[in-house]
Amino acid sequence: MEIYDITVAISESVPIYEGDPKVNIEAVMTMQDGSAANVSHVCFGAHTGTHVDAPNHFIDGTRRVDELDLDKLIGTCHVHQVGESVVAIGPEHLPGLDGIERLLLKTRNSAFWSTPEEGFRTDFTYLTLDAAKMIAHAGIKLIGIDYLSIEEPGAGGHPVHITLLEKEIVILEGVDLRQIPEGDYELICLPLKYRGGTGDGAPARTVLVRK
Amino acid sequence: MEIYDITVAISESVPIYEGDPKVNIEAVMTMQDGSAANVSHVCFGAHTGTHVDAPNHFIDGTRRVDELDLDKLIGTCHVHQVGESVVAIGPEHLPGLDGIERLLLKTRNSAFWSTPEEGFRTDFTYLTLDAAKMIAHAGIKLIGIDYLSIEEPGAGGHPVHITLLEKEIVILEGVDLRQIPEGDYELICLPLKYRGGTGDGAPARTVLVRK
Repeated sequence: MEIYDITVAISESVPIYEGDPKVNIEAVMTMQDGSAANVSHVCFGAHTGTHVDAPNHFIDGTRRVDELDLDKLIGTCHVHQVGESVVAIGPEHLPGLDGIERLLLKTRNSAFWSTPEEGFRTDFTYLTLDAAKMIAHAGIKLIGIDYLSIEEPGAGGHPVHITLLEKEIVILEGVDLRQIPEGDYELICLPLKYRGGTGDGAPARTVLVRK
Repeated sequence: MEIYDITVAISESVPIYEGDPKVNIEAVMTMQDGSAANVSHVCFGAHTGTHVDAPNHFIDGTRRVDELDLDKLIGTCHVHQVGESVVAIGPEHLPGLDGIERLLLKTRNSAFWSTPEEGFRTDFTYLTLDAAKMIAHAGIKLIGIDYLSIEEPGAGGHPVHITLLEKEIVILEGVDLRQIPEGDYELICLPLKYRGGTGDGAPARTVLVRK
């Protein structure tokens, strides 16, 4: 069994989606200062690093992240390589969806994780509304992409998110697929379990397993 | 495949180990107030709810939580029921350890999760040093217990933690085993991946799988 960690770590230097809260991580007790133990305190926005969006991110009053169905988050998964030149992923760039339960799109975005010092980039590859509709109709359980949003930046009304979330499809954003060849895997995507705020999403430790 | 979530959620009302930072969870953008999306901000100490301890919690300069070996966190696991009257778990309360890779101890502590309004309790069942030594010598990869510490409260020098952590055994604390019968499972324990502070531990979404 080989386990591949595709999680982008939360840190004070990780690129953050425009307008989202900053990360703050502090050592509040340290053995160097005479404490019996080291203890850290961690603060971040719910959409930091590798994370999932819950329906309540964009459709008020709906399912929160702690209520996501674990059966959607764990199971067979296809990683599909999208061409290096593609910025707007249309239906013609998707694989055949028959039999696919979970789909991760590997795009030119993955390379962005090699240069975090550039900060948040707005020129990322995203899913078009036509492709989102095709995925919504195919009965996919989870769709993932390798940067911080699945939708064109500045898209008024966020139709791609809403098309997916109203079908209760889990949106997984910010995975790092640099080391992952196209193919079939088992996905394990486990979002932080918290209750409070609006439960709109959560960082999710995410791995691919090949047996 | 049945998936059992044994994770205690982070929330502002979850019991916190004495002296550790409080939880704070806020909605920083809300659709009700006219934002395009709901977005939450989450703050907590690294040892909140269901969490793992990394060696650097008690042995300064050692392995941090983001460096824990995923092979230790995913795989076969035995859940062992400890008698209801046991407070100090000695070698005589452990199961035979041959062939066990990961061990979760289900004790009277699990019932504490039914009354969070009582706050942090110090009368929890813990592992004795003799039992910790036996586990350390058996080559176990991960040891878990169903309350916020595996060690007797007030134990000077934290010898149980250090005995386990210097063997690089993952300590999993605060699992909720109320609904889990004794037996064999697959464990998936995925700690939040962050870098910063002292990397001493992290909340870990944790599930048991039965096929």
